Order: sequence, then structure tokens, then C-alpha cells
Amino acid sequence: MYKQDTICAIATAPGGAIGIIRISGPEAICATERIFVPAAPTSAPLSARDAYTLAYGRILNDGGEPVDEVLVSIFKAPHSYTGEDSVEISCHGSSYILQQVMQLLVRQGCRTAGPGEFTQRAFLNGKMDLSQAEAVADLIASSSAATHRMAMNQMRGGFSRELSALRDKLLHLTSLMELELDFSDHEELEFADRSELSAITEEIEHVINRLVQSFSVGNALKNGIPVAIVGETNAGKSTLLNTLLNEDKAIVSDIHGTTRDVIEDTVNLQGITFRFIDTAGIRDTHDTIESMGIARSFQKMEQANIILWVVDSTQSQTQMEALSHRIFPLCQEKRLIILLNKADRTPDAALPHTIILPPHTIVLPISAKEKTGITRLQSLLVEAAALPEINTGDVVVTNLRHYEALTRALKDIRRVQDGLHTHLPNDLVSQDLRECLFHLAEITGGEITTDEVLGNIFKNFCVGK
Amino acid sequence: MYKQDTICAIATAPGGAIGIIRISGPEAICATERIFVPAAPTSAPLSARDAYTLAYGRILNDGGEPVDEVLVSIFKAPHSYTGEDSVEISCHGSSYILQQVMQLLVRQGCRTAGPGEFTQRAFLNGKMDLSQAEAVADLIASSSAATHRMAMNQMRGGFSRELSALRDKLLHLTSLMELELDFSDHEELEFADRSELSAITEEIEHVINRLVQSFSVGNALKNGIPVAIVGETNAGKSTLLNTLLNEDKAIVSDIHGTTRDVIEDTVNLQGITFRFIDTAGIRDTHDTIESMGIARSFQKMEQANIILWVVDSTQSQTQMEALSHRIFPLCQEKRLIILLNKADRTPDAALPHTIILPPHTIVLPISAKEKTGITRLQSLLVEAAALPEINTGDVVVTNLRHYEALTRALKDIRRVQDGLHTHLPNDLVSQDLRECLFHLAEITGGEITTDEVLGNIFKNFCVGK
Repeated sequence: MYKQDTICAIATAPGGAIGIIRISGPEAICATERIFVPAAPTSAPLSARDAYTLAYGRILNDGGEPVDEVLVSIFKAPHSYTGEDSVEISCHGSSYILQQVMQLLVRQGCRTAGPGEFTQRAFLNGKMDLSQAEAVADLIASSSAATHRMAMNQMRGGFSRELSALRDKLLHLTSLMELELDFSDHEELEFADRSELSAITEEIEHVINRLVQSFSVGNALKNGIPVAIVGETNAGKSTLLNTLLNEDKAIVSDIHGTTRDVIEDTVNLQGITFRFIDTAGIRDTHDTIESMGIARSFQKMEQANIILWVVDSTQSQTQMEALSHRIFPLCQEKRLIILLNKADRTPDAALPHTIILPPHTIVLPISAKEKTGITRLQSLLVEAAALPEINTGDVVVTNLRHYEALTRALKDIRRVQDGLHTHLPNDLVSQDLRECLFHLAEITGGEITTDEVLGNIFKNFCVGK
Repeated sequence: MYKQDTICAIATAPGGAIGIIRISGPEAICATERIFVPAAPTSAPLSARDAYTLAYGRILNDGGEPVDEVLVSIFKAPHSYTGEDSVEISCHGSSYILQQVMQLLVRQGCRTAGPGEFTQRAFLNGKMDLSQAEAVADLIASSSAATHRMAMNQMRGGFSRELSALRDKLLHLTSLMELELDFSDHEELEFADRSELSAITEEIEHVINRLVQSFSVGNALKNGIPVAIVGETNAGKSTLLNTLLNEDKAIVSDIHGTTRDVIEDTVNLQGITFRFIDTAGIRDTHDTIESMGIARSFQKMEQANIILWVVDSTQSQTQMEALSHRIFPLCQEKRLIILLNKADRTPDAALPHTIILPPHTIVLPISAKEKTGITRLQSLLVEAAALPEINTGDVVVTNLRHYEALTRALKDIRRVQDGLHTHLPNDLVSQDLRECLFHLAEITGGEITTDEVLGNIFKNFCVGK
């Protein structure tokens, strides 16, 4: 299924006390043996040693000079990460030394591994399915308890087991349909079966739908909860973003319409990641580029879970009246927080009485510049996030590829439901069932997985993993 | 000799595929065992396993949740890096995971290690002497074949063996002196001994002197060969430095006297590191700060092995005449390269006939701005460096602390020589011999080594080493 060559890579970041070189493939142990001399001269050669043992000794270069004193770990197929014979060489963490050892290995016939190639081999050798392989990268990137828990559960096969159960149900359904085909002359039998089929189908639809729905939480946890900051130009949106980010990412000036590009940045509040979207100021403009920015502002609002509408409290009446009819309709099913900014200049800032707020809207006077009201805003954001706690074992979809496959599977199973309701011929319904199975199999890579799909998945891995 | 507690540290830099946590001390294996569950439930607990074996399994947190799937390496005293029971946990390279595992270990009674604490324990447990311990840090920092070779030789005890041979000779000398004291009534015996003593002393002096002299090479290789760039203001010194560095470290402008601070940066040419020292322009000035800068320029020149004197070729006559009487006397025993800069504007640039150059001076027309003549200059620098090749096994002193101790030991042994020549009483000469032994022992830490000395040595190590 893939070239049976031996790959090697530096698996640690430069700059530490220890540097690890990873080698995997049929020649892993022999290639290492040719550049390694054990410290105890009477001890066995690497190839004669047991798996899961360590050997202490020296790496020698072609001139017989010591390159480093190292520890070598030996793993034998199939009991290794990749499922192949593997070696890990633990060197002193000098980039020079690691490069030298890599060169020696290449001269011994090893090939420098590409990103994620060890994990790709683990997948191809059946050590893990594709969703588990993808979780390895998520695990390495995990930076909070929630993202760690989701990646760990996925890597340990939680998601795979859920998919496997779905697959069993779908196969059961298929066999029932085939049984029915055989007895299709008996009308009364068909009727009984159809209701059983509908019940099972509904069950499957329910599970897939739950998985699809979990992506909004999974994605929010993994990439941050999207928060759009909107409002008229010069209301103080960029200043607010800077205050929240605690640094100067956005350019702030007093000229109207400074922020044309959508800037995104994340902030961690009480363990929850928020992805702030600064948007172009909304106002009438004849500048084409700026008009495009404003259109994007409304687009970005739709993607957000939380909307922060920044109003200049010295002009709250005009600003609220001008924009509420455009902003409020977009805030259904979102949390809207109206910030009366520049509150230091208008201590009694309040909303105009004429405005009727959508339910659950929160109004908060702040000063982005003087940093007043910001702590309260941060608490409100954490409350508005209202993410369910992720428990060990919860299956949450965090991967866009999985989400897309599940969305397709959901459409398939709903077509199956329709087919059963409208008494479509069984062979047509079966076709949709097969599609559904296929789309679920894409997630774990159980069926044919193209090089292109694998390439896309593993290119974002780090080298050495 | 030190607290027998158990230490732990992350030994890899953040950002790689793999992250290693190192644990050392009496509780290393037990503490790990309490947070580790082997993958095969029937397998032996860590404490019952052999040294130099690996165990695959999971780290669990206090709630029993999996933190990571890991490989655990087991080492038992005294056959480990530190000489203590030790464990290395190989985790996925996520900072979050590594922090979680560290917290679990701390809750199990381990203490977070300070910089170099593992190597310090290796020294205190007699696994290596102090000069070998220092070589570990040099090895990790090594970035060229020469620095790697010097550090590797020192870590493998090459320097220690040379010092040990010196120590044996000094002890032999001491015993001969004591023998003489016993027979001090016999004048003729004393005379014979004195000449033998002188011969041995001369031998010792010769070795110590060679080691002291090797520091200039060792230091140049380790920290770069110091090259001072001098010349009048606006002759193009900073432009030249930027061209050599290939980036914009120094601020370049057309205003005279821009470069007030001494900037140092290194460039690697054909495997040799050069440390370039940009200096303030030399000219008459009433600006106090600038005058200080000029004084520093001359000071820096004295530290350099190679002097690049940048002359504006459009004003070569005046500049050469104004400064040659100040620069030439400082260039004895240094390599002087005179660069006729801005050669693009004066294609026929030549030296004024009135100037008599010191021997071996090289004159080269260049244009720092147009980058002409730079390749030739780089070749000249490599030639001028003229460093001896470092071979495996060559003992070269690279450490300032060792150099200082050797310089003191050299003074001691020369006092011994004087004492023997001037027929000082033996007990006075013995005193100097003891001093010499003491200063040599400082290098390997053989005698009493204070916490202050150890603190100074290990504070510059990385954590986890």
C-alpha cells in the first residue's frame, strides 16, 4: 500500500536538553546498528536485542569519530507506533548533532520523513483509523482541558466506536431491506418491516444529527467561540479589541473607517477560548473597498455566536436608531451585548427609550480607552459562551472533514427516511443506505482512501509525528 | 552532599512531535508508577521491571482520566545519567500535556528541577567531573564541527585525563621534595634532586602553558574570531557590517557619527565563526558620548585578532594620514586588512604613496553598498583566521573558568621554578606546589567545590539537562 522504505526524522523542537530522532521501517534497527557502538563492548548488537529495551552507547561518524553519546530505544513490528520496526535515538539537544545523525542515517539508506509520515504509516498498517490519526495532531495542538479531552477521546477510539455502532445499525438495516426484497410478494410482511425499518432509521438519524450538532461546540472549543465586534465607525471597536487582546494588533486611529480588513485573534478567559472578529465600521460610504468591508462585517456577524455591538454613548440615540433595524434581525439565536462605549465622557449613558431590544440582550456601559467595565464584559462573555462541559468519553466532532462527511451522511439517512415514508422501491432506498455507509466510512478511512485525502490530512502534521 | 529529593523537568523544547519529562531521585520510579497504567494490564508494575526497559501505557490524572499515552524508560542507580534511579516519560509534544504530567509528578512529591540540576547530580554522584559536566552544556550549544569536537572530547574526559596526568606529576614532585626534606643534611643529594626537580617542573610548566595558550584558539572557535571594523565616521563601516551579516542589525544613515554603541554579531564563513565588532567612527568630536564611543573603538581593537580598517576611497589620502599613526601601532601581531570602500565611485582607488604599511597588511578595494569585493574579503578573512584544525582527541581549553584556573596554576608552577632556581627552602616551594595542585583541581571539581561555584556553572544550563 506504500513504499516499504525506512524513514527518519527529528521529532523534537530545536533548543531543548534532549533531541529525539525517530526511525521506522524494515531497515530501522540495522541502519542504526551500523552507526552505533554500545558502551559495553561485550553487549549484544541492536538487532539481537529485545523489543522495548534501551541501549546506551555512541553514534560514530564515517571517520569513526564520536558524534554523540546516546540512548537507543528498540521497537519491533507490529508492536510499535507505526507497526513497523522502529528506533528512537535520544541525543543531546544540539541541532548540529541531530543534523549529523540524520545525515549518517540518510547515508545508511534512510529517507527523511515528511510531515505526519509516522502517523500515516500507523494508519496504513492498521494501528489506528483515520479519525484517530487526525486526533494525534489535535492532541499535540491541544492547549486547554476541553480540547485535550476531546482529542484524547478521539485518539483512544471514542468516535470510532460510535461510528462503528452506526455502521452495524446501517448494515442491519441493509440486511432487513434485502430480506424484504426476497419476500416482496407478501404485502403484509412488507408493512410490518417498513415500520421496523423506520424505527431503526430514526435512531440512526438521531445519532448522526447529534454528532453534526456537536460540531458547533467542538469547533468553538477547538478554534474559539466566534465573537463579532460591530458598530459604527469610530465607536471604539478596535480600541476595545486591543483592550481585550491586551496588545496592539489592530491599528487604531481617529480617522473614520480605519479598519478595513477583518482581523481575528483569540483570547482565553477562564479556560474558554474566544475568537474575536473585528469588523469594518458600518456607515454610509462611497468608498468601494470600504463598502466591501461593511458587507463582510454583516457576513461575519452571521458566523458569530456572540455579538458585541459597540455604540458611542455620546451619540447613542443616532447610532442605535441608524443600525438597530439592521443588527437586531441578525441576532436571533445569538447572544447580543450592547456596549455603551466612552462611558467616561457620558456617565449617565443610557439607551434611547424608543428602542425595543431583542430578548436576553445585555447593555453595559464601558470605556475601552480607560479600561472600565472590561472585567464585567469578560464575565458576561464567559456566561454567554455557555458551552456544555466536555466529559471524558463524550464524542464531540471537532474536525471540519468529519463534520462535512457527517453532514452528507445525515442527508443520505434523511433520504432513506423519505424513501421509507413514500414507499420508494427498496433498491432505491438501499442505494441511499450505501451512500450513508460510504460517507461514514470516509471518516475512519475504512474504505478506499485516496492519496489526495491522506495528503491533505497529514500535510498539517509536524515532522517526526 | 545534596538533598536526596526527586526532581523532574521537561527536557525538550516546546513545539515538537515528542515531549520528554525527566525524573531523577530515590522516588523517581515509584512516583511515576502511581500515575502510570501499563497498556497490558497483566504486565509488571514499573518498580518490578528491569533497568533499561521501556513500558507503554497511559498517564492518568487524579480523576482517573487519561492525560496521555506514553512510553516510560526506566533506569536504576547507579547506571543512569545522574547516578540515581531515573525515569523518562515520552509524551505527545503538547505543552498542555507536559504541564499536566509535571503537575501530577509534583503532587506525587517530586520537585521541579532547576537549570542543569540533572548534570549537577551526575557530578555530585561521581558520574563525571566538573569539566565534563561543563562540556555537556557546550555540546548542546555546539554549532560547528570544531566546537562539537572540542566539547565531545572534553565530555568524554580528554581534558580530565590531561589534568590527571599533570596531577600525578605534581604529586610525584611533591613526594620527591618531601624525600629531600628528610635527607636535607646531605648537600650533594639535594643538588642532584634539584636538577631532577627542575626537569619535572619544566615539563609541567610546558603542559600548563600549552593549555593556557590553547584558549585563544578554543575561545575563537567557541565564541568566534574577533574582527574589529574601524575607520572614520561615514566611511561605510555599518554598511559593510550589514553586508557581511546580510541583514539590518546596525542602523545606517548618512549623518556622521551614527554608530555610537559597539554592536557584535557573528557570521559563519566556511565553518569558521567570526565575531564582528562594529565600532564608533573615529574623528575629532566634542560630543562626550561620542568620544567615549571612540575610546571604546580603540579598546575593542586590542581585543580583536583581525582589524578591518574601512577607508572612504574618495578621501583616502586624508583619512589614511589622519589615522594610520593611531591604528598601525595597535596592529602588531594582528592581521590588518585595509578596505578602500566606495570603490564604485573611485575605480582607480589606491593608497597614498606616503604611507608605509605594516608587514602582511592587505589592501582591498570594495563597495559595501554595491556588494563588490565582498566574496574576496570573505576569503581573506578565512585565510587570516588561520586556526589550526581541531582533531579528535586534541585538548583545547574553551572555558573561561578553566582558563583562569590554568593561568593561576601557571603562575604557581613558575613560582616553583623560581624557588628551585633561587634555592628557596623546600617547604616554601612545596607551598607553591600545593597551590598549583589546588588550582588544577578546581577545574575538575576534585577538591572542595563551593555551592557558589556550582551555582555559577549550572545556572546557564538548560532546564532538564
